[in-house]
Amino acid sequence: MIRKGDFVLLLSEEGKSFLVKVEETQFSTHEGVIDLGSLIGRDYGSKIESQKGVPFYVVRPTIYDFLKKVKRKTQIMYPKDIGYTLLKLGITSGCKVIECGTGSGALTMALAFAVRPFGTVYSYDRSQEFSEVANENLSKVGLDEYVLFKVRDAEVEGFDEVEVDAIFIDIREPVRIVWAVERSLRNGGSVGFLLPTTNQVSELIRVLEKSNFIIDEIIEILLRKYKINPDRFRPEDIMNAHTGFLVFARKVTR
Amino acid sequence: MIRKGDFVLLLSEEGKSFLVKVEETQFSTHEGVIDLGSLIGRDYGSKIESQKGVPFYVVRPTIYDFLKKVKRKTQIMYPKDIGYTLLKLGITSGCKVIECGTGSGALTMALAFAVRPFGTVYSYDRSQEFSEVANENLSKVGLDEYVLFKVRDAEVEGFDEVEVDAIFIDIREPVRIVWAVERSLRNGGSVGFLLPTTNQVSELIRVLEKSNFIIDEIIEILLRKYKINPDRFRPEDIMNAHTGFLVFARKVTR
Amino acid sequence: MIRKGDFVLLLSEEGKSFLVKVEETQFSTHEGVIDLGSLIGRDYGSKIESQKGVPFYVVRPTIYDFLKKVKRKTQIMYPKDIGYTLLKLGITSGCKVIECGTGSGALTMALAFAVRPFGTVYSYDRSQEFSEVANENLSKVGLDEYVLFKVRDAEVEGFDEVEVDAIFIDIREPVRIVWAVERSLRNGGSVGFLLPTTNQVSELIRVLEKSNFIIDEIIEILLRKYKINPDRFRPEDIMNAHTGFLVFARKVTR
Amino acid sequence: MIRKGDFVLLLSEEGKSFLVKVEETQFSTHEGVIDLGSLIGRDYGSKIESQKGVPFYVVRPTIYDFLKKVKRKTQIMYPKDIGYTLLKLGITSGCKVIECGTGSGALTMALAFAVRPFGTVYSYDRSQEFSEVANENLSKVGLDEYVLFKVRDAEVEGFDEVEVDAIFIDIREPVRIVWAVERSLRNGGSVGFLLPTTNQVSELIRVLEKSNFIIDEIIEILLRKYKINPDRFRPEDIMNAHTGFLVFARKVTR
Repeated sequence: MIRKGDFVLLLSEEGKSFLVKVEETQFSTHEGVIDLGSLIGRDYGSKIESQKGVPFYVVRPTIYDFLKKVKRKTQIMYPKDIGYTLLKLGITSGCKVIECGTGSGALTMALAFAVRPFGTVYSYDRSQEFSEVANENLSKVGLDEYVLFKVRDAEVEGFDEVEVDAIFIDIREPVRIVWAVERSLRNGGSVGFLLPTTNQVSELIRVLEKSNFIIDEIIEILLRKYKINPDRFRPEDIMNAHTGFLVFARKVTR
Repeated sequence: MIRKGDFVLLLSEEGKSFLVKVEETQFSTHEGVIDLGSLIGRDYGSKIESQKGVPFYVVRPTIYDFLKKVKRKTQIMYPKDIGYTLLKLGITSGCKVIECGTGSGALTMALAFAVRPFGTVYSYDRSQEFSEVANENLSKVGLDEYVLFKVRDAEVEGFDEVEVDAIFIDIREPVRIVWAVERSLRNGGSVGFLLPTTNQVSELIRVLEKSNFIIDEIIEILLRKYKINPDRFRPEDIMNAHTGFLVFARKVTR
Repeated sequence: MIRKGDFVLLLSEEGKSFLVKVEETQFSTHEGVIDLGSLIGRDYGSKIESQKGVPFYVVRPTIYDFLKKVKRKTQIMYPKDIGYTLLKLGITSGCKVIECGTGSGALTMALAFAVRPFGTVYSYDRSQEFSEVANENLSKVGLDEYVLFKVRDAEVEGFDEVEVDAIFIDIREPVRIVWAVERSLRNGGSVGFLLPTTNQVSELIRVLEKSNFIIDEIIEILLRKYKINPDRFRPEDIMNAHTGFLVFARKVTR
Repeated sequence: MIRKGDFVLLLSEEGKSFLVKVEETQFSTHEGVIDLGSLIGRDYGSKIESQKGVPFYVVRPTIYDFLKKVKRKTQIMYPKDIGYTLLKLGITSGCKVIECGTGSGALTMALAFAVRPFGTVYSYDRSQEFSEVANENLSKVGLDEYVLFKVRDAEVEGFDEVEVDAIFIDIREPVRIVWAVERSLRNGGSVGFLLPTTNQVSELIRVLEKSNFIIDEIIEILLRKYKINPDRFRPEDIMNAHTGFLVFARKVTR
């Protein structure tokens, strides 16, 4: 049953989706105004209509929906890259994980979701503003309690934690933080990096190979959407062609 | 510190990797025999040498490594598809999830890893043999306690559970099980399907659109590996071109 | 030396390009007006400036540029698909080729370019309007003399020619024209089809396998552009995800 | 009618293909011996059987088939890249084109095929051996008369021709030959480069931007094959993930 304060996802037959918090308010869309208060007490999965008569289904948002709808101050990491990274780094309930930088908090949210209820995410960013937006994004969905946000130039100062299970780096000059990763990651543990350009990857390989790391894998992930039409099944016309290269490495003793 | 009974990953500089259990035994590779007993008491991240003098690093395996090395009786689901699916279905600690079919248990393992320590995976397969192999694969890594394996023709008999948080289907004729998904999934909840062929996707769209589901997304995910060479950075020559189409839908009341 | 009446391509440093005919006229762009008359008598490769002071280079257009800039009444075939098709069908100077349908004439132009100066393209379309637009597109660049445009419902009436070297089909219901291809293509010759949907491909396979054809290959071609930045080399953010599936077959006697 | 001396393509129902010259000889395959002499006088498209009873269709090879079957001393350029390049550079009957290096002659063959009967290809390689193999590959199919093969270190000595219509470069250190391209290409004309690594692309961009060139486009082309099965239509499992990056530029006066 839908309760006041729940986040729900409104889905139209045409594939439009809205993530909203159920309150005694009106929600305006191009398809007409939706009376959110009228949802209270109804079953999930129900069909409702906007004042223009456009039907919407009220479904349960998953972490994917929250990730796609975070308030953005920066480019965010995509679910295709996040999902793979969580498996590759072995993030699970109870893990202690460092992330740098926080950005808008999309990966932070996914990490918190994965380490709960017993783990902790230490999320560093040099921007007070980004850190606050990310905190806000996680508070909304109750995941902020699993995260310590820290505003700091970690490339210079490093991280406070040691012996963490895994680390993920998404900053402009990743080569400058390798020393800090080496200090804070437990022996034999895994680190991941997201890098937009090939030049950054080449540079990072050189620095990792001179440090106490062995590189495991360098990949990119492409996601292609298809049109939902059983009689004319085909890919969509346009796709994202690039988000970044993912580099994964292990901390070793050379 | 590495203890007897630990699973460790042995990584060579050339990218070879072996997932082994540390015992007082010898492990044979093309690069020479490795004395596993000698690892006991050493630090993770250590470098050891095979009897041929080839160096290996001993690192901590993550769930990704266990997934890649499951004993296979069937085609397994790939991390690129699994990672995205876990986010899309919102699998987290405490979830109750149905999976059909079990196959060799790769997805089962990832689901168990994600729902632990408080959730349960109900994994159905009509093959006793597959179910046993999957159980064995999960036992090895201590994840079997989060899974109930059930051998059954679920297309005919359906699932025992109701009101589950999410369902994933990877069987030959997915259209035959839509009725059972509808019965066991909670309202507004998410279901995913993995389908190798376009014909299956067209058929499934038709059945879902006539049932109490709204289709959310149909995608495929491609992973491209790059060579780890900073001065000649380029993609690898060969890649997997297809594992399957992923269809995601929500249970609604039409 | 640039002469009056020449087609030239104007390229900006930022990658903008305009295909224009050199006359005593002004050409307006967002980057300012360009005095085309001033180009007459200058060398190819020259730098000129718009009245806003934006520099442009005057280069020689190739068939690729003409293809990209055809006046469009329909979706056109892309160079990535055209180039492969010309090789696959073996189109060269002197060939007799049938094309159906003409559309806006992009493929027609490439076929004419490839068969000149001794071959002929027979281009069928049921739309008088499309045929005229295509004719106009080819006249502009002097390639119309290698093409016979025919307005006809070829699915019903077939083609006039027999023993042609190759045939290419790009119509809505390609299965309806297989009989006509079989009648007009020489024995052992090659035919290509462009099909947007997977359902059409499945249908076409069935019809070809029951007719006097052996299918050679079914493919799709993806083109990914990169940003022209030596220090931050990376793919562009967005790409075309789908133009169509290409099916190639040989006429045989079963 | 098939004549002695013709090249024919033998296609099996399972997709095997053999390119052979029809002589009074036997041709051995895993599917059994085929009596090539028996083909003389038969129609193209005919079905024949090997001595094991496996059926083959005798079809007309196209330039694509000759490209795929060249005798290889080096990595060859692929039809997906060649087809696009011919359009991009505007290669047509009558063109004068320089190519460096020759390699095994796959691109040389396609260039000769495109410029015939009135154009010329000037094909440079520093290896006598490669040049001879390429010459042999083209002689077999009667295209050698359109090519002048030259054995030379063109990076040092440059090309003999000037004012050529187009140039294509596929050598190990393309930056070393930019000066020679600039000298031999006509003003406003097009040059293409094939480069395996991202580092080479970055370097080449830097050199072209300092020389009299404007870069037009940097791309890669991916080709995905599908299984020929109407009821289980899906991509093949494996694909080529990388052949090279294509860089196209125009010669201008800065």
